[in-house]
Amino acid sequence: MPILNKDMTLCISLAARPSNIGTRFHNYLYDSLGLNFIYKAFAPVDLAQAVAGIRGLGIRGAAVSMPYKEDVIALVDVMDASASAIDSVNTIVNTDAVLTAYNTDYLAIARLLDEYKVDPAGTVLLRGSGGMAKAVAAAMHDAGFANVTIVARNEERGRALAALYGFAWLAEPGDVPADVLVNVTPLGMAGADESVQSFDGALIAAAQVVFDVVALPSETPLITAARTAGKHVITGAEVIAIQAEEQFVLYTGVRPSPELVKEASAFSRS
Amino acid sequence: MPILNKDMTLCISLAARPSNIGTRFHNYLYDSLGLNFIYKAFAPVDLAQAVAGIRGLGIRGAAVSMPYKEDVIALVDVMDASASAIDSVNTIVNTDAVLTAYNTDYLAIARLLDEYKVDPAGTVLLRGSGGMAKAVAAAMHDAGFANVTIVARNEERGRALAALYGFAWLAEPGDVPADVLVNVTPLGMAGADESVQSFDGALIAAAQVVFDVVALPSETPLITAARTAGKHVITGAEVIAIQAEEQFVLYTGVRPSPELVKEASAFSRS
Repeated sequence: MPILNKDMTLCISLAARPSNIGTRFHNYLYDSLGLNFIYKAFAPVDLAQAVAGIRGLGIRGAAVSMPYKEDVIALVDVMDASASAIDSVNTIVNTDAVLTAYNTDYLAIARLLDEYKVDPAGTVLLRGSGGMAKAVAAAMHDAGFANVTIVARNEERGRALAALYGFAWLAEPGDVPADVLVNVTPLGMAGADESVQSFDGALIAAAQVVFDVVALPSETPLITAARTAGKHVITGAEVIAIQAEEQFVLYTGVRPSPELVKEASAFSRS
Repeated sequence: MPILNKDMTLCISLAARPSNIGTRFHNYLYDSLGLNFIYKAFAPVDLAQAVAGIRGLGIRGAAVSMPYKEDVIALVDVMDASASAIDSVNTIVNTDAVLTAYNTDYLAIARLLDEYKVDPAGTVLLRGSGGMAKAVAAAMHDAGFANVTIVARNEERGRALAALYGFAWLAEPGDVPADVLVNVTPLGMAGADESVQSFDGALIAAAQVVFDVVALPSETPLITAARTAGKHVITGAEVIAIQAEEQFVLYTGVRPSPELVKEASAFSRS
């Protein structure tokens, strides 16, 4: 039986369709580390009132997901560089009623590119033009990638994102190979597009690294095909675990060991 | 380890100085009954923003304690008769973003007077003139008590409360005996007044029923003396358990058995 107490610090998430991953990930770590915290997902009825509640109830932190990542900008007090660089917030930290907004997706992408030593001199096809694609484009640009092509059917958004960092734009992947393939669209995600492979076999064969930010499932058709072809893969499960770890550090001030993060991540997806 | 999940319904309390009782009471019952609920106390930073958070986050219910019982009236949508009768709210129920306010202290007092078959024809000394005294006075009046004397040093408030129900007023208990003694002041409560006995031995000796709403501790000097004198006693622990049970029913729609309420109450105070 959960022995809850009045002094527990609450952290939450705000998403139109919450998954169980954050709730399980954070509570697993709180429990493992003996922190008097508790975490629960919310689907807000009204975003402004929900953010007021973060202040009014003294909720320590909030993960922000679709479709609120841009709307919360007007509701926080301070924008950290990770969020202002891409005009997108995925984390709010409440310190004495001052709400500071971060984007740990950006931080996670930057860490993964670094940890996997993805060569910034390589050519990149980056498919997508939404908020997460913006985070990936910004992190790649800031890591020194210059030969990036944004692939997006929405020409206006695709060109705008490409223009931000001096990247190229294409409506469809085409057949010009690239060293790094990155999918930041819902293609391969559970639902209508789950059987769609976001890059074709010829592009996969020509690539060295295949990176899919889709996390549910993380074994997308793209990742499966890339594994079969013997490519280095980076999955959405890794992005979600690292961005959650960075949120955890922001909320608690404690950095869990890599082993513990792995355990929590596995638990959160089980 | 607490296995929390995203779908849990949250209930909270709002109090300047939360105790652990509500958190333990409600969570014990949720667990025993297999309800996917969770409960946590909050000390709000800002009341209006906290109540906005109840709406915005879809929090199902909130217990309201000192000093917010009157201030929340302006922030809710509907006042139930139990709250409007005494202009005091101790419970908010959120149904599809409509906030209805109740006062389960009133409901608890009414239930205890009934269950203990306290004779409404008896004379009563009711010491106190605050929000809880108002709840007791209203419940006694509604149960048919007419020979009630409000005892309160604050003449304005004491007379005003007495006038509401055609009761008498006295500044101090004096030496005129009564059948029922009720303490609704902080006398006997942990803190500066914990050793103060709110009615003297002669009044206790002459009474049949002694009722103290002080709950921390519930064994006040008044209750101890009344037990020693062989009187029927009603304690603040009973009030707090019944008012919490009524909150539980309002939040969940489930009425726990009397045995389970006793268990939860004992657990909440252990």
